[in-house]
Formats: sequence, structure tokens, C-alpha cells
Amino acid sequence: MPQSPNRRKFLKSAVLAAGASAGRAQSTDGQPAPDDPTQAPGSLARAYGERSRFEKTVRTPSSTGTSSGAPLQDLNGIITPSALHFERHHSGVPDIDPRRHRLMIHGMLDRPLLLTMDELKRFPSVSRIHVMECSGNGFRNKGAKTAQEAHGLVSCSEWTGVPLSVLLREAGVQSGASWIVAEGSDAAKMTRSVPLTKAMNDVLLAYGQNGEAIRPEQGYPLRLFVPGWEGNISIKWLRRIKVVDQPYMTREETSKYTDLMPDGKARQFTFEMDPKSLITYPSGGQKLASPGFYEISGLAWSGRGVIKKVEVSVDGGRTWKDAQLQSPVLPIAFTRFRYGWKWDGSEAVLQSRCTDEHGDMQPVLADLVKARGDHWGYHFNPIQSWKVSADGSVQNALS
Amino acid sequence: MPQSPNRRKFLKSAVLAAGASAGRAQSTDGQPAPDDPTQAPGSLARAYGERSRFEKTVRTPSSTGTSSGAPLQDLNGIITPSALHFERHHSGVPDIDPRRHRLMIHGMLDRPLLLTMDELKRFPSVSRIHVMECSGNGFRNKGAKTAQEAHGLVSCSEWTGVPLSVLLREAGVQSGASWIVAEGSDAAKMTRSVPLTKAMNDVLLAYGQNGEAIRPEQGYPLRLFVPGWEGNISIKWLRRIKVVDQPYMTREETSKYTDLMPDGKARQFTFEMDPKSLITYPSGGQKLASPGFYEISGLAWSGRGVIKKVEVSVDGGRTWKDAQLQSPVLPIAFTRFRYGWKWDGSEAVLQSRCTDEHGDMQPVLADLVKARGDHWGYHFNPIQSWKVSADGSVQNALS
Repeated sequence: MPQSPNRRKFLKSAVLAAGASAGRAQSTDGQPAPDDPTQAPGSLARAYGERSRFEKTVRTPSSTGTSSGAPLQDLNGIITPSALHFERHHSGVPDIDPRRHRLMIHGMLDRPLLLTMDELKRFPSVSRIHVMECSGNGFRNKGAKTAQEAHGLVSCSEWTGVPLSVLLREAGVQSGASWIVAEGSDAAKMTRSVPLTKAMNDVLLAYGQNGEAIRPEQGYPLRLFVPGWEGNISIKWLRRIKVVDQPYMTREETSKYTDLMPDGKARQFTFEMDPKSLITYPSGGQKLASPGFYEISGLAWSGRGVIKKVEVSVDGGRTWKDAQLQSPVLPIAFTRFRYGWKWDGSEAVLQSRCTDEHGDMQPVLADLVKARGDHWGYHFNPIQSWKVSADGSVQNALS
Repeated sequence: MPQSPNRRKFLKSAVLAAGASAGRAQSTDGQPAPDDPTQAPGSLARAYGERSRFEKTVRTPSSTGTSSGAPLQDLNGIITPSALHFERHHSGVPDIDPRRHRLMIHGMLDRPLLLTMDELKRFPSVSRIHVMECSGNGFRNKGAKTAQEAHGLVSCSEWTGVPLSVLLREAGVQSGASWIVAEGSDAAKMTRSVPLTKAMNDVLLAYGQNGEAIRPEQGYPLRLFVPGWEGNISIKWLRRIKVVDQPYMTREETSKYTDLMPDGKARQFTFEMDPKSLITYPSGGQKLASPGFYEISGLAWSGRGVIKKVEVSVDGGRTWKDAQLQSPVLPIAFTRFRYGWKWDGSEAVLQSRCTDEHGDMQPVLADLVKARGDHWGYHFNPIQSWKVSADGSVQNALS
């Protein structure tokens, strides 16, 4: 950062001004903020910005450190800031030098490829605003107190990358090929099979997230991005794609990420994430100050396309009214919904339910249990209930 | 962050593994990255994420520290990450405790308002993806080497806030009122007049940026956001709005942010930002490795609405071809354009020009000079030229 001749003087006066008001006001980390900001010169431009020291919302790393949820109740709009995008990894976040990273594309191809990041970026790219959800999001939700604890393993970013179809056409897919297998360069060597039809449709080799390089915990320098499908398929730290003629039945699609059904068989390859919504304000752990007007706000999304409708109930599902959908409403992306509500001070149960462009509506938990039994946990998308007590406190009331 | 029982062991093995490969590869800041990331457990989940240590692109603070440009040539998509959003301030970035910040709305109103941030957030909000451009962006562009130096005072974020119209209706605007005056709580007490028609149309009291709280250099905890108008009108650290019957002719709309025309009069209240585009890749300071395929990519925007067309020339404006516009194309927002180009290795001059929904097309510099003379600098939107030399180097060739 260039040093101005006035920089030292400027900083000195800022320190003096701050000192003058010390003891009168304390920030949350114990330092004073000036009583009157107009009487203190501010700080100078910075090379890489940071959030205000008064902002404290964070992700919540799990006890094993292998995941962290996004603070959905504190976020606005549809873009999740990259620093707060949920994370889930199976052997931690690897430390990768992008200049040494390689992507191998091989298998049933006429011309296998081995690419550096610079070579990959020479191909045409696209950017898409898309949601990313862990297939286990909502799993064992009953003890969760907040929207973050209950549903934080979902986020939405603008992803930039090269369509996989471009590279597969470059490489020449041989007849008989029907799947790809993607492998990460983390210590778990995370590996998943993807049908070739999906790979040729909308899958990206993503190197960008919200304008800058993809974040380390999202796969830096390169991830597979499989729009609308459960998150673990979007292989992070991607190093290899093999074109094959069958799924590879890896650990992550047999013993993991499958659900035991009542008939003793397992649901497998449950790729698409179902329509889901939740109210983020007011939500568990928050408190309404007094009766009066509140704008109920929340998020809806579907792995199958566009959200067509979100309904809100303030009486535990007895009656429903349409919420307002904020534009732009994009496919496989967060859709922010809003609903004006006048709270009369009595107990209320707040719910939302969404319907996507295919007419699929978010179910109640009882219907999911009826269909799937008691031994499942993935693809958990029932209607979420938040109970507002007469004192204004809000609690998780998933039933 | 919760501590797992295995955390210490986990970290220890990560350190050992990294140590084992020391000396074989050096990152840009001198620390080794493992040769084979699959052989080293990665790092655990974090409360607030950071970009990779290998990513070095930054804003470029000016010598006075009162502005910094976004590294447009390094960014993807249409969202500018908040840490790299350009900044411009007139007395530095104030340090404001949001719990003590107040917004006063007074003047020609039936019911003046004094609001805390919590009270303001009780009103209905909207989120909009919008571009923000300094009216001086491009000013004295001739010595600039890169897209960032030449045009970096423009960025695009998702902004969240309460429509000003909601609060003005709440307060009851009196007859005869025709302008508002907005005042910041920085040491410059930055003040601008805005016609009431605009204030009632699409102006926001913005507290959110890209999902989280607005960044300090963007006005934390609250800024006026005036879509499509020159950046300095979107008063940051907003503390006061007065409803009045005339513009207040403040410093920033008389001696500053006006342009001297050939007839000796000044252009004043040049609110709307004109249609503008630039190629960000390839752009000044970059180098093409060898002849072959390149995807030309860039950004277009207009303060008056939607971009309808972007054309690209690779022969200095002799011939033009339509570029591809990436969806979603949103009003008053960055529109990413792309154009496939086969570079034959000879000298080339790359240009883009955009046309907005009103048919306004980005002009050449000579036409602007003909209309405005030699003593202007604001609202500088001529076609930008980048010259590609036979050795692949790219230079600013604004003519």
C-alpha cells in the first residue's frame, strides 16, 4: 500500500480523537468507538477489506471440525458471503499450490487431457448463481436451537468455471461411456460417480466463487460443481475425472450417503436436492421485542429448478398465505421470500412451504416418515416450525 | 470454536506432513505446500473463512489513501467480493458502533423520525444486485496501465435495505417538498441533494452487502443507496435525511462533481452514470502466452437500466461483432460478456461498446471531447482500447 506523506499525521490524529472519548463507549471487544465520528478522521483505504469489528456472526464448526454451518438467521439477500459459506470436508482442507495443481481427464476418451489451472482457464467459462446444500442438512434437527444449527449446511454463491461438457467434447467421449468418476486431492480422496448425461448438461469445473478465487474450504483451486445435486458430489480439490461405463460404487455412494428404507433396501444415488424452505427471521433463538409489525423473511430453493411459490403460515399450518418472492428468482438458487405479519402478542407457530416449477411441494415430516420409515436422515426437507411464545422468544418446534 | 478431542493430534500430523515436504516447493510467501495433498490431513473448519494464501490480488489504495480500485482484471462473474469492492471516502472510514448509530429523518414531514438500527430493520426490506460507480471512474485514464488503474472505481454487490419511500410515507411528506438532503457521519459530513422523485422511486437505506453487514468502507452500518447514480450521492455512514424544497448546493454538487463546459458554464447534477463497458481479459498488463483461442471477457453496465447489447472489435473499431451476454442480465448491474477469439499472433486492438435498453451507446472519446471540451473529467465512459502486441503483451491504448 502506497504511503502518503500525511499518513502518519492522519493516523495520529485518529488515535488522539479515539482516545478523547475512551471510557464513554465500549465496543464488544473492549475498544472505544468515538462518541461523534464526525470529529475523528477515519481510517485510510486498505488493500483487502475486512468486516466491521462490531460484526460477530460466525459459522459454527462441529465438534470434529469437519463441518460448519452458515449463520442463516443473520444473512440478507440470496448471496452467502464466502467467509460464511457452510463447509463440509472428510479429511480437512488441503493446502494446495495452484501452480502445481493438475486436472487429469482420462478413461473412455479419444484424447485424454492433463491440464494446469492456467490451461483450464483458457477454455470458455460461465458464471451461475447456485445453491449448494449438504445432503445431510437438517439431519437430526430436533435438538437444534437456531436456523443455523438446524439448516446451516446450505449456502448460495456465484460460481464461475468451465462447463465440463466443453472439455469432454475436446477430449472425445467414446461410445459406451455412461458415467464419470470424479476424485478430490484431499486426504479422503473423496470420490463420486456422476451419470454422463448430467456431466454433459450443466456441470462446471469451478475455479471462481463470488467474484474471486474459490475459497480453500470450497475446493481451491478447483471443484466439480454439480448444480442441484447433493453437495458431496461436487468434488472439491478436483484432480481427476475418469470417463467410465458404470458407477464405481465408492464408499460415499454405498456405505455413506444412502438411506435404509422400511423394506430393508437402501435408497442410493439420491442425487437431486428436494424443494425446501425455512423462515430465517424470526427463527429459533431470536426474540421479538413487542407486539407489532414484523416482516417474516426466509429462503427457499429446489435442486430441480425455479421456486414458483412460497406460502407462510402463522398458525402452525392451519391457514396459508402467499409470500412475496424477491426477484431475480433464479433456478437452483436461494429465493428470498418476505411476508408482512402483525404479531398480536399471543403464541404463534410460524411455518413456510415452497413449491418448485415441477409442482413439487415441501412435505410435512409425518409424510416423509410414512414413506421412508425411521432409519433415514439425508434429504431432510420437511416444513420447519418456529414457535413464538407470548414473551416474544422463538424456539425450534419441528414436529 | 468447539475443541475436538482429536484436534491437537490432527494439527500435529498436519504439521509433520507439511514438514516432510519442506524445501521441495515454496509458496509465494515462503511456506511450503505439501507435494501430495492427499498424504497430509487438512485444516479444520473455521468460524470465518479466508481466501487461499496463494491469492494475492488486491485493491490499489491511492497515494492519499482516500480511494482504492477493484482488481477488475482478476475478478469473475458479476459479484465483486466485498473485500475487493472499490472504495472512495473524503475523510477516511469512520469507526461506528451500530448500537449507538441513529438515523434522523426530518424537515418537511408530518412525523419526523429518529431511528436506531434495530428499529430501522423492523421495516420491510429488499435486496438488489446493483453496480456502484464513482463519477470520477476513468478520470485521467491515459497513464493507467491496467483495467484496475483505468476503471477500478466500479463494483457490483447485492445490497439489502429498507426502501426510503417506506420511511418517507411513514413520516408523511408535506406538500411543496421536492428534494431531500442526505448527510454522512464521516469527518467530511459528506452531503448531497437528491430529487424527491428519485428518493420515492428506488433509493434504499442499505445495511446489507453480499449477504452480510455492509462493509465499513461502504458505509457501515448504513448508507444511502441511489441506484444508477454517481457513487458520491449514495451517502455513506448515513445519519440524516432532511426533506426540503430545493437542492442545497453543497460543496460536493457545486465546486466538486461538476464539469466545466466549453461555454464557460458547468454541468451540474449529472446524476445518472452512462452506459460503459470494458474488456477485463485480455487487458493492460496481461500477456497472451501464444497464438490460439482466447475467450475475451468483460463487464458492461448502465445507470439507466438493462444492457441490451455488447459488441466487440478486435481490429480497433473497424468491424464489430456481438458478444454473448451472460444471464441473468439485471438492471443497473454488471453484465458479464464473452466473445471467443482466435488470436493469429499479429498486433490487434481490442475494444468493446455497449448499448442499454434506451438505445444509448457507449461513445468514442473524440465525440465526448467534441461535446464537452477539454476541462471535464467526470462521467468518463468512452470506448476502451487494449493493444495486443505481437509478443502477446497487452497495453492501454485509449485514444
